This record gives sequence, C-alpha cells and structure tokens, in this order.
Amino acid sequence: MKTTLRTRKLEELNWMEFRRLVPKKADAVLVPVGTIEAHGVTGLGTDNQIPSSIAERIAEPVKALIAPTIHYGITRTLLPYPGSLTVPPEIFERYVAEVAASLAVAGFRRIVFLNGHGGNTEALKNVSSRLYRDKQVYSMVIDWWSLCDEEVRQVYGHTGGHAGTDETALVQVDHPEQVHSREYKKKLAFLAQPGLAAVPFPGSIILYKQGEGYPDFDPAKAEQLMTAVCAKVAATVLDVFARWSRIR
Amino acid sequence: MKTTLRTRKLEELNWMEFRRLVPKKADAVLVPVGTIEAHGVTGLGTDNQIPSSIAERIAEPVKALIAPTIHYGITRTLLPYPGSLTVPPEIFERYVAEVAASLAVAGFRRIVFLNGHGGNTEALKNVSSRLYRDKQVYSMVIDWWSLCDEEVRQVYGHTGGHAGTDETALVQVDHPEQVHSREYKKKLAFLAQPGLAAVPFPGSIILYKQGEGYPDFDPAKAEQLMTAVCAKVAATVLDVFARWSRIR
Amino acid sequence: MKTTLRTRKLEELNWMEFRRLVPKKADAVLVPVGTIEAHGVTGLGTDNQIPSSIAERIAEPVKALIAPTIHYGITRTLLPYPGSLTVPPEIFERYVAEVAASLAVAGFRRIVFLNGHGGNTEALKNVSSRLYRDKQVYSMVIDWWSLCDEEVRQVYGHTGGHAGTDETALVQVDHPEQVHSREYKKKLAFLAQPGLAAVPFPGSIILYKQGEGYPDFDPAKAEQLMTAVCAKVAATVLDVFARWSRIR
Amino acid sequence: MKTTLRTRKLEELNWMEFRRLVPKKADAVLVPVGTIEAHGVTGLGTDNQIPSSIAERIAEPVKALIAPTIHYGITRTLLPYPGSLTVPPEIFERYVAEVAASLAVAGFRRIVFLNGHGGNTEALKNVSSRLYRDKQVYSMVIDWWSLCDEEVRQVYGHTGGHAGTDETALVQVDHPEQVHSREYKKKLAFLAQPGLAAVPFPGSIILYKQGEGYPDFDPAKAEQLMTAVCAKVAATVLDVFARWSRIR
Amino acid sequence: MKTTLRTRKLEELNWMEFRRLVPKKADAVLVPVGTIEAHGVTGLGTDNQIPSSIAERIAEPVKALIAPTIHYGITRTLLPYPGSLTVPPEIFERYVAEVAASLAVAGFRRIVFLNGHGGNTEALKNVSSRLYRDKQVYSMVIDWWSLCDEEVRQVYGHTGGHAGTDETALVQVDHPEQVHSREYKKKLAFLAQPGLAAVPFPGSIILYKQGEGYPDFDPAKAEQLMTAVCAKVAATVLDVFARWSRIR
Amino acid sequence: MKTTLRTRKLEELNWMEFRRLVPKKADAVLVPVGTIEAHGVTGLGTDNQIPSSIAERIAEPVKALIAPTIHYGITRTLLPYPGSLTVPPEIFERYVAEVAASLAVAGFRRIVFLNGHGGNTEALKNVSSRLYRDKQVYSMVIDWWSLCDEEVRQVYGHTGGHAGTDETALVQVDHPEQVHSREYKKKLAFLAQPGLAAVPFPGSIILYKQGEGYPDFDPAKAEQLMTAVCAKVAATVLDVFARWSRIR
Repeated sequence: MKTTLRTRKLEELNWMEFRRLVPKKADAVLVPVGTIEAHGVTGLGTDNQIPSSIAERIAEPVKALIAPTIHYGITRTLLPYPGSLTVPPEIFERYVAEVAASLAVAGFRRIVFLNGHGGNTEALKNVSSRLYRDKQVYSMVIDWWSLCDEEVRQVYGHTGGHAGTDETALVQVDHPEQVHSREYKKKLAFLAQPGLAAVPFPGSIILYKQGEGYPDFDPAKAEQLMTAVCAKVAATVLDVFARWSRIR
Repeated sequence: MKTTLRTRKLEELNWMEFRRLVPKKADAVLVPVGTIEAHGVTGLGTDNQIPSSIAERIAEPVKALIAPTIHYGITRTLLPYPGSLTVPPEIFERYVAEVAASLAVAGFRRIVFLNGHGGNTEALKNVSSRLYRDKQVYSMVIDWWSLCDEEVRQVYGHTGGHAGTDETALVQVDHPEQVHSREYKKKLAFLAQPGLAAVPFPGSIILYKQGEGYPDFDPAKAEQLMTAVCAKVAATVLDVFARWSRIR
Repeated sequence: MKTTLRTRKLEELNWMEFRRLVPKKADAVLVPVGTIEAHGVTGLGTDNQIPSSIAERIAEPVKALIAPTIHYGITRTLLPYPGSLTVPPEIFERYVAEVAASLAVAGFRRIVFLNGHGGNTEALKNVSSRLYRDKQVYSMVIDWWSLCDEEVRQVYGHTGGHAGTDETALVQVDHPEQVHSREYKKKLAFLAQPGLAAVPFPGSIILYKQGEGYPDFDPAKAEQLMTAVCAKVAATVLDVFARWSRIR
Repeated sequence: MKTTLRTRKLEELNWMEFRRLVPKKADAVLVPVGTIEAHGVTGLGTDNQIPSSIAERIAEPVKALIAPTIHYGITRTLLPYPGSLTVPPEIFERYVAEVAASLAVAGFRRIVFLNGHGGNTEALKNVSSRLYRDKQVYSMVIDWWSLCDEEVRQVYGHTGGHAGTDETALVQVDHPEQVHSREYKKKLAFLAQPGLAAVPFPGSIILYKQGEGYPDFDPAKAEQLMTAVCAKVAATVLDVFARWSRIR
Repeated sequence: MKTTLRTRKLEELNWMEFRRLVPKKADAVLVPVGTIEAHGVTGLGTDNQIPSSIAERIAEPVKALIAPTIHYGITRTLLPYPGSLTVPPEIFERYVAEVAASLAVAGFRRIVFLNGHGGNTEALKNVSSRLYRDKQVYSMVIDWWSLCDEEVRQVYGHTGGHAGTDETALVQVDHPEQVHSREYKKKLAFLAQPGLAAVPFPGSIILYKQGEGYPDFDPAKAEQLMTAVCAKVAATVLDVFARWSRIR
Repeated sequence: MKTTLRTRKLEELNWMEFRRLVPKKADAVLVPVGTIEAHGVTGLGTDNQIPSSIAERIAEPVKALIAPTIHYGITRTLLPYPGSLTVPPEIFERYVAEVAASLAVAGFRRIVFLNGHGGNTEALKNVSSRLYRDKQVYSMVIDWWSLCDEEVRQVYGHTGGHAGTDETALVQVDHPEQVHSREYKKKLAFLAQPGLAAVPFPGSIILYKQGEGYPDFDPAKAEQLMTAVCAKVAATVLDVFARWSRIR
C-alpha cells in the first residue's frame, strides 16, 4: 500500500476502493474508542479526540485503515459533572463486540482498539478475548496513557493524571482552541486517595501522586509529547504485528 | 444563546461551558445517526456524513447543541458489499436508547435524531416512543430523504433512491473529493422490485422508480439541494419545537 | 335470543342468566378496547367511548353480548400530552390475550374486538391470530375508522384524522357535553409528514392529508355518521359471522 | 379545585382541562379495580360496580380524579361458574403496575386503588409497594369490605360474606334492576369451612360465619350502608393523605 | 455442469455425486418453502406445490440444485379452515435459518428461497438478512406472485388474490386432478377490507380489489402463465446472480 | 372411508374434502420424518424416501391420511460428508412438536411418526410424550429398522447397518435409478466399534456386526423386504390403534 493512498479513513473510501485494499493490501484497522466526560479545562470529547489524533498519525506507519470513532463509552465517577454521558458496561461491550465482529466479516484480520478512556478498558479486553474464538481475528487494546507512562515522564518529569499533564497536552496539539487555560484553577484538581471512592469524584482533574500531574500549557512540550506517544504506540503495534505474523 | 457561541459541538465544550449552557440556554440536542454501508461512488460513511452536514448547518437556527455521531447502525441488504458494517438491531436500539437516556440525565429536554440511514428508522422510533415514558424528554426522528422528498423533486424533477440523486448530491457539497464520478456506471444501479428481497442487493445504488434516481454530479444543483434540505429540516424542527412548547 | 333481553352487558347479567344464554343463545361477544389519550377538544377517553357507543348500538342486531371495556392501551406519540396514559405493548397484548382466552373458556365461540385506537391494532391482531390455535375460537378486530372510511367520506366529503372529523363527531353523539368546540383552534391540528416522527407529536389533532380532517361540530352530521358507521360495522360483523358458519 | 368541576372522571376531561388541574389542583387519583365473577343474584360485574360507586361518591370530598376502571382481575374459586373470567396473577399485576406508573408520569402524586375483589389484594399490594421505589408516588389499596366491617355490623348486626349482605346491598343502591331477589334461594349460599378448598367453590354466595351474611334486600338499609361505607372510606383516605403530607 | 445431469434434486444425489458438483460446478441451491393452508378449490399444499413446480422448471437455466421443500410454514388468518396447519413464526424462522446455515456449511454460496406463502415472507427476509453476517453466503427471497404481478396481468387482464386467478392456474398445470372447478362458487371469495382483520378470514379465496382475482380454469392460459412466471423468475435470479458476481 | 378415496395425501386434498374426512372418517395421520445424510451409494434423501414409501403403502390398510414429509432432521456423525445437512436437536424438536400440535388442532386424534433416521428418535419420543398432555392426542414413533429387524433377517439372513442391506433395498424398490451399485465398494463400509466415536464417522455405510450388513442389490429380495416391512409396520400400527381404542 503506497503512501499515496488518498485517505486511510474507512468512512471516506467507497466500496470499490475498499475492495481493492482489504484484505490484500490492508488487513489491519484502528478503532478509536472513548467517552464523553468532564476533563478540567479541555473539552468533553477529550477521550475521543486523543485516540483519533493518534490514529491519524500512526495509520500510515502501521499500514492500517481507521474505522469511525465509537464516541459513547462507560463513564463512572465523573458522570455527575455537567455534560458527562455514559452507557451501561454490558451494552457498551456488546455494541463494540458487534462492530468488531462486523469488521472481521468485512475482511480485517487484525483489530487495534485505540482506547482513550480508562472506564472502557475492561470491556474492551473482554471483547478482544472473545474475538479470536468467535471470528478468528487477532486484536489488541491500547491504553496509551499506561503504555506511554515513560514518555510522559521524559517530557514533563512526572506522570499525568486524568485531565492533567498528558491529556491536556495531547488535546492542545490538534485542538488548541479547546484548551481554556484561563479557566484553569489548581483547585479543579483533586488527589486520588486510597480508601476514598466518591461519585462525583471531587475534582474534574484527578491527580495520582501528591504534587504531580497538574496541566502544563506549553505548546512545544505538548508537540514533543504527541510525537513521543505516537512513536511508542506505532512501535508497539508494529512489534505485536510482527510477532503475530510468526504464529501462523 | 448568542450567535457568537464558539462551538455547538458538545464534544468541544468543556464541562464548565456546558454548565452555563444546558439546560438554561440550550435544552435541545441534535444526534446524527448513520451507518457504514456501500453507496455507489460515494464513501462508506455517506449515511453519517449527511446528517452531520445538516446538523452543522441547522444547529444555530434551531438553537441546539450537536452530540457526537453514532457511526455504526443497522445495515442489511448491502452488508455483503466490501466495507459495509452492521450491528444487530436489538443491540443498536439499546445502545442508542442508553445514549439518549444519558443526554436526558445531562439536562437536555429535547432530542432530535438526525437519521441518515433507512435501516435505523424503526429502532430510532422505538427509542423515541419510550423516551418520554422513561425520561420525560421530548424527541423526534428525522429521515431527511423522506421529509425533503418535495425539495429533491424541485431541484431534480424526480426523487432519489439509495446512493442516487439526493444522497450523492449532499455528500458532494462537503466532501467533493469523495464523489468519484469517474467510477460511476449506470449498471451500479438496480431497480427495487416487489417480490424480490436479496442479500446482497444486486446494486449499490438502489432505484425506487423506473428511470429515476440516478446520480447527477452537478455541483450547483447539489448546493441548491443542501440549502433546500437544511431549510426544510430547520423549519420543521422549529415548528415542532414551537408546538411542543404549547403542550405543557 | 329475543329482543326483549334486559341487557346485553355481560357485567350486568348474573351467572344464572349467563348460563341460560351462553353459548346456546349467544356465543358471540363484543370487546371494546381503547386507550387514554389526548384528542384535541374531546375527552381523554375518546378511544374508549366510541367503541362502547358502537357496541351498544350493534349488540342487538349482531346478537352478541358486550364485555367490559379494556380502557388502558398502547399510547405512543401523544403520550407526553397532559392526561395521556400508556401500557407497554407486550403487557397489553398478554393482558388482552388472557381476557380473550377466559372469554373462550366461559363459552364464547366468536370474539369481536371493537378497537378505538390505532396503537392497539397490531397487538390485537397478534392476539386474534393466536386465539384459534390456542383456544379454537374465531375472532376479528375492527378498526372502525378504516372500515368506515367511505362512510366518513359520504357524510363529510373527506376522511378523518386523529381527533379530527370522524372521532369528534362520534364522541359528540353520546357525549355532547365533552366536545368543547369553543376550545378548538385550527392550530391544535398538525399534518403528519413522511420522514418526521415526533414524541410528542406536534398536534393533538393529527391530519393525514393537507387541508382535510379538521373537526366539524354539526350535530346532525354527527348523528348521520354514527348511524352510517354502526350500520357498516354491524353489516360487516354479520357477513363475517355468516361466512364463518359455513367453514366447519 | 372548586366543587363546580364539570366532571372528576379522567376519561371525560380533555387534555387542556387536565393540564389546568393536574398536579396543581388535583394530584390524587382513584383507580377502581375489580373482576368479572359470579355473585349469587347480583351481576357478574359486582366487583367493578361497587368500587365505581364508592369512587363517584368520594372523589369530591377527597379532591381526587377518577381513572377508568380495570374490569378484569384475578378470579379463582368461582371461576368455573358461568360468566366468571380471570387473568393470571402475574399478568394482572404487571398490567396494573404499568397503568399506575403511567399515572405517575402524567403528574399524579397519590394513587388510591379502590379494590372490589379479594383475589386482587395481594397483587395490588405488590404494585403499591414497588410504586414508590420506581416512581416516587404514594399509593394505598383499599379493600372496602374489610375496612368497613364495623359499618356493616352496625347496619345489619353481622358481617357480609361474598355476594352476601354487604355486596348485594351496595349493588342494589346504584343498580337495583340487577338485584334479582326473586332468583335468590338460601341454597345459593355455602359456609366457608377451614380445611376445605374447592374449585369451583360449592356456592356462589359465600358465608364466613354460621347463619350470618345472607343477602338482605331492604333498599333503605342498603342506602344506609352505602352512606356509611363511603363516609368511612373517605375519612380513611383523607386521614392517610394528611399523614402523608407530613412526611416530606 | 452439463444439461445431462441425471437430477438436480439434492435428495436424489448421493454424497459422491454431490462432492463432484458442489461447490465447483453448482454453488447455488433453490429452497422451496410454503405452508399447508386452505385454498378455495385447490389442494391444501398449493403453497408448496407452486414453488416446487417453479424450482423444477428453473433449476436447469439458473444452474442450481433443488433442496427438499419445507412444507410447514406460518399460517394465520386461514388457520381455522379444515386442514390448515401452522408453526409459530419464531420456530419457523429458526428452523429455516438452521437449514440454510447447514446448506452454507455444505458448500453452497448462493441460496434462493422460492416462497409460496405470504405469511412466510417476513421470517424468510429475516433469515436472509442474517445469513451473510453469520455464514457469508448470499441469499434471496422470491415471492413469485409479487414479482410476477405484471405477468399475471398480461395473461388475465388483472392480478390474482389468494387462491384466486394466479395460484389456481399454477396448480392446475402440474396437478390438474387437484383443481376441483365444480366445487367452485363465487361466494368462496371475500374481498379484503381495511379495518377488518378476521381469524378465520371470511373466505378461503381472498380478493384484493373489487371484482378482480376470481379463479379462471382455462388450461391454456394456465400453461401460458406458468411459462411467463418461470421465465420471469429465472431471468431475475440470473440477473441477480450476475450482479452478485461483480461485488467481490 | 371407502378405498375409492382419490388420494390420502393431505397436501392434495382441498379444505372441503378435508372437512368431509377429518375426524369423522379419518382421525389418524402418518408423518414421515427423516434427514439429509450421506448413505453409501443411495441418495442423500434415503431417510426421507423410505418412510414416504412405507406411508404410501400402509395409509390405506391403517385408514390414515399422509402429512407432508419433514425433510430436515438431526444429522450427527455423518454430517461432514458432502451433502449432509442438519438442524440442532432443540430446534428440530420444537418444529416437529408444533407441526404435531397443529395436526391435533386440525382434528386428528392419532399421529404416527414414521421415522427414517436414528438421530431423530430421541426428539420424536420427546414430542410424543408431551403431545397427550398438551393436546390430548395419541401418538407413536416407529423406527422401521428396529421394528423390522426380524423381517430383514428372514430375507437376508442377517440385519442391516446404516446405508447397508436394508436401507439400500428399500430405496431400490421405489427409486432404482438412485441406487448406484457400480459406485459401491466394500471399503465404503466401516464396522462400528465400542469405544470409538468419530465425527465424521469413517465410513458412509455403517456395519454393526463383523461381516454383516453389506448392501445387496438383488431387486427381488428388495421387493420381498418392502412387502414384509410394510406388513409388519401396518400390523403394528393397527394393533396399537385397536388397543388405544379400548382405553377410553
């Protein structure tokens, strides 16, 4: 598949183009999945926007197509914040499983769920573990924030938190107009503490370590993080693909 | 709500902006819903792109926000075409119902499903008819191609067909690069006949009347149709809103 | 069964009277079924009152008893209007099926559902099509407004609409005090349009054809319509009864 | 709500009248519930007629509207008697629960089930106990014959029995033509005995105490009982309403 | 596959013959489906016999095998007529779906349901629309009477009705001894009317248009119709097959 | 019922003929049931053809009608052989149960399942054992090969095996063109052995005893066996009928 491909977005290909590509020239697909949830001073769609940004940057290097984003996921502790939305776990899981099964029937042999939201992880892993049994396709789930913990640390000296350092940075790259740094106040952030579970959680920015994870609005660092994250995700996907190719 | 609103896309608002708007200044939301399906020479995402285009044009006049699109719907007779995807009706219906219930909980009092795909209609109407009972919100489902039958007729002299005159035109306005008129051949189209149900349907363009509905690639007419369709949809939504306001 | 029968209402007969009548002298029963729903300027019980009125007028000519009315049915698009009530389709269907099965066990061999509400039709037809298999009784469902389309046209020159010409007229005959013509305004009516499904429907009077179906409060025409409708329904029931008698 | 209200029957109000009344001027509703069952020499609808009669007399003093009667209930031991009808307990319970939920959605905050039939009591209590949890409305179930045991004793010197003293009297007040005293024979009555359960029960009049409960056809006493019963029911409802008003 | 094939009936081939044919030389199969139902003066098996007759005539031209007929379908309104039989819709649908899935596993890639009974259509379309998703086979459902409406009109000047013009004619060709023209009386026919659903339907011959559809026993016209119907069905199947071959 | 009956096939009778016959002159029905399965050198429909052949020969002596064959049954160990088809046991059982229930409703009082396939036996016995409870009809299941073990022995000196001596012989009588003796090789047969279960079974002819059960293509013996089998089955059915007649 040459780099001159007009688009890698499945939605923008017509069926005759698709027929020429899948599965002969492209049998992998990236599926961005997120949710609608309060995120400090970034948009409610933060968890959809970040995996979409990553997908657009890595599709070419990993030679995959990009499926449309699944926007509505499983929101829990921040659900009572204005604008947060949720879908019950079992409905979300069945909906995603059916989308994935349909991608398999359409000819894809490798499915990469690019997940933008921690609340979805368990459900996506369940989907993934049943996909091979049902449809004989290989699949993986990537939680970029966990996978790229080290990359965040290298750019910022510490890790991220929900709607904190790393998420704010990645939104800022493609959607700078949505990062309202003037609305930001330190008190939006709350430190997660063992032994405390609260719904709504007492801050729309969640820190995981005392004094670490506050957003940083420096655009240069944000770009640097995006580059590092995409490099790490792409390298990981390619490594898994290579190892998968040795199984059969 | 002034016209200077930065964005009407729910995904791009942060939760503090949302709190200032919903429900006080905006209690209506547009939800574009489509599917991934073969459409002659337009993209597989035709049924998502058209309601999104309409939503972006009418959000301001009808004073509504725009929720993220639900991209994966109920594809039936064109499912075997390369790139078509589907979700079983009962899963789709439950997923949409949960998204809508969540929008109600978030403060919206009026939900407009802008539907781009006939296969979704029955499920969306079921969702709509249960929403009031469950959540006391008002809702409507708009199948733009049925509602605007007269508008298509005025621009083209006849009506549309699946992936035919009207759908091709509306995609062309916002996504001209996806309309591959050179790939178009008349034989892509097939006339629907009573007594014949086929999966796959024998043409990725479906005509409903002998000799009518073939695509027309004239960009001026396409613009004219988009304007007429959006005017009709906006007027209908506003009329229904006005009448709803007199019920209670 | 002589015409001197004290009453044909099942509820008013005692069990010894019933024993003398059913099934020897009367093996047919009329079951009025409706719902509670907004109807322009007539009462919320319009859909119960009309089939009851018809039942009282045709019981004698068709030699049937009248069972108590099932008042609560399946209301959908007008449910959000003040005072409208509904029962989920599957519960309604099972409740009616059980009532019908019990009427069969009690000795009736022919059951006529006199339906006053379009939302019930599908469920009643399902009940009817299973009754023979389960209980070996014959049954029919009569939607008077469809069956008597021609009769409405003869009296008014056009057909009716929900809460429009024909329903308003039939309520007026037996319940003139409930027809509030002074509250009537043309804008209570809304024309049904293809491609638009709205809950609540934007008018408590629903027209099906441009300019046709508005209520008419002339009491003489109303009487004339009632006579014509009851004549048509009775003739149809008798014709079907006669044909049924030739089957076995 | 002034006493000049044209009607308190929900079925006879139109939706605009309803909107002016509920819940602002009337947030309580009476729901008569009975069954179709053999009752000695009174009509098969005795259990529907009595709660309807009571509802019409107490609606004004307790400031409530009257919903349409649910005619088909749970008949057991007298089911084999000619004309008796029944609905299985679980279907009846779900049907009533849905009607009640719908009344709650329509704006009522207090629901009074006026029950005319002992076989329904358990199901109605189940409905009532779930209503607050599901819909946050208050509700009560009134078995008039138990509540007014003392009133019957005061008028007749003893209590009533099924289709005996008290039921026959209350039917007689509003439906004297249905009380066939000439058909009455003492042997229609059978004394309920511990250790004996029989279907059909061996008498369509059931006595609960040796020598007590036989019908008495004196119209003056019947009127006296009706007055006493309605006074007691109204007083009880008002007392409960008052106490409920002190909870929140 | 030469025309000298001994038989095209799957039942008459042994497994070694089948292995030589499917799928290499024949990957399409015709599945006749009907029901047992009263049909005026033709046999109870009319709806099985007609698709079988068509299958035998078109198997050669469309190069398909013929699977055994599924004789028991979904009979509704004529069920109470002597000899009519039925299977509940959900059981029928699952049974047919399993037979079709098994045909797919056996190597067929194209399945043509030749349907003889309108009551089966919905279920067969459901089966067809799920077959691709589940088994990646292509399928179609042919209701010959709808598809060949024009052919009937050309031979008889009007269309057919249940057990009327066209069905009687097609039975007559292969089973003349079963067409009892002497038993025929005009009153066996009944005109379907909107607003009336009756079980049993009041005639074992159902007309859909005033004055049209009565049986005609002319054997020459019957032959002419069979030829025209088989030509149209075969041409349609071949056209769809050709178009299917261009999809992937 | 005289022997001059035009046909005993239910499918070939019209409803008026059926009404004259059932149940007055014929209240018993034979239901042939089989499957589609590899059978050595006989056709895939062997298990349907044999019970059909028997049904046609015994209908007259046992005074029963013949219902259409249920062709698709439960195939297990030979399913992977080309052309074999199967239906899951629970679907098969429910489908047959519904057909039988419908035959009971249609007036039959005695149902004889003529089974041609061992894989169906358990399901048919389940159907039979519930039929009386549900529909108060009497029924029996006949596995001709077990019942006629002695008859096979008398003609051939040993018993049969799957697709061996007896099945091949009975197919040969009515369908000699389907018995491809030239394709027969001894190695098609495999001896069933305790402790070995294999899918696919290693031979499409299954022997149950060392050296016994190989097909024999002698037409005279085949005729002799058919006569003996039909005599035994008819005698058994008549004996059971006679004993049943003494129960009530």
